[in-house]
Amino acid sequence: MTYCVGLKINKGLVFMSDTRTNSGIDNISTFQKMHTWSKEGDRVITLLNAGNLATTQLVISLLDERSKAPNDRSPSIFEAQSMFQVAQLVGETLREVIETASPQGELADSNFTATLILGGQISTGKPSLFLIYPEGNFIEASTDTPFFQSGETKYGRPILIRAYEPDLSFEEAVKLLLVSFDSTIKANLSVGLPLDLEIYRADTLKTCDHRRFQSDDPYYQIISNGWGEALRDALKSLPDYSFK
Amino acid sequence: MTYCVGLKINKGLVFMSDTRTNSGIDNISTFQKMHTWSKEGDRVITLLNAGNLATTQLVISLLDERSKAPNDRSPSIFEAQSMFQVAQLVGETLREVIETASPQGELADSNFTATLILGGQISTGKPSLFLIYPEGNFIEASTDTPFFQSGETKYGRPILIRAYEPDLSFEEAVKLLLVSFDSTIKANLSVGLPLDLEIYRADTLKTCDHRRFQSDDPYYQIISNGWGEALRDALKSLPDYSFK
Repeated sequence: MTYCVGLKINKGLVFMSDTRTNSGIDNISTFQKMHTWSKEGDRVITLLNAGNLATTQLVISLLDERSKAPNDRSPSIFEAQSMFQVAQLVGETLREVIETASPQGELADSNFTATLILGGQISTGKPSLFLIYPEGNFIEASTDTPFFQSGETKYGRPILIRAYEPDLSFEEAVKLLLVSFDSTIKANLSVGLPLDLEIYRADTLKTCDHRRFQSDDPYYQIISNGWGEALRDALKSLPDYSFK
Repeated sequence: MTYCVGLKINKGLVFMSDTRTNSGIDNISTFQKMHTWSKEGDRVITLLNAGNLATTQLVISLLDERSKAPNDRSPSIFEAQSMFQVAQLVGETLREVIETASPQGELADSNFTATLILGGQISTGKPSLFLIYPEGNFIEASTDTPFFQSGETKYGRPILIRAYEPDLSFEEAVKLLLVSFDSTIKANLSVGLPLDLEIYRADTLKTCDHRRFQSDDPYYQIISNGWGEALRDALKSLPDYSFK
């Protein structure tokens, strides 16, 4: 499995992904699941991938390849006029890759599927965030649904539901995501460190902050250890049940 | 889906289960998933069921029927000498019911499966807690794994992992379980109120406290509303991330 989150806040976009891939618990590896394409002053596009590794790597490679061969008949993510067009392009590429790998095409509920989180900003457009399904279709984040998760989403969902606010600062958003990831990592072996973080500050049209949290990262340690304590305190702050 | 938890603490056992059953989101009903058999001074046995409703109802009915017809060749849960024997009996009954319903027997990864949480105390034995699989085999709770969940387990797991302590009071344990259930209910439509609670105080050998939390229960409201606030405060109590 995998755990990826894309978060849309008023100040911009925040992405986080784990790096564990596995074919059974005795065959685990580390792969980056976050990829960013950027052209300063014009666009920044980030893609998080959850699912079959061969599928997602091929999608990334095809997108990369097309962006380097401008005479290719297929459009490139550097030519798309809007984030919506990028989402269409990525969705089509994903569907094609899955169809090629699985004889029954998109109907196959096979191991070749993948779900992608796409976010970024192009020129005068607004920062936007999409969830792209294996069938190639997609949905866009709104004020009602301001974040997308993919992969092993359930453990880390309650804290996102409870603590997300559109006016979070980037510093608070990173903290929130680390708590969500840490809760998942503590409960599920298929999600693991290191964690990749990417920040996109609205209207800068350039890559802002990218970093990787290793398990010995001091801030990650503070959150991971401190959250258990903070949760127990939170529970203590509520009144105990009373058997009349 | 369903959400059931059995918790073993030093003072005894605590059980909680939701009551929602569904065949698709347009066909939901309320069914009690918690059943208790007791004979004061001798034994108290509680069973929580998650899975196919026809399967679990038949298991309960068969166990009930056998306990009322003492001349039946099959043993009754009132005759078993230990909780281990009860677990064997329940496991066999469950496996038989699933085998009868599905032509391929236990190999069928069908809709007939169910997972049961069994707990209680018999005579001079200790209070014990078991998780019984559709195949009829089972595991017993230990100090390493002092609680079992079944059904929609992931949303409510992080708080159990972080806040469980063997020396919890019953009042604290009920609070912990309500938080775990509320986190699940807020994230997943297939788990719903009302919630059934059962407390067994070690060595009393009688049913202790049983009650049902409706959605308008004042204490449930305090927990459900208060937990969001408490979580946000917990998050605030940790230092924000700093971009150097």
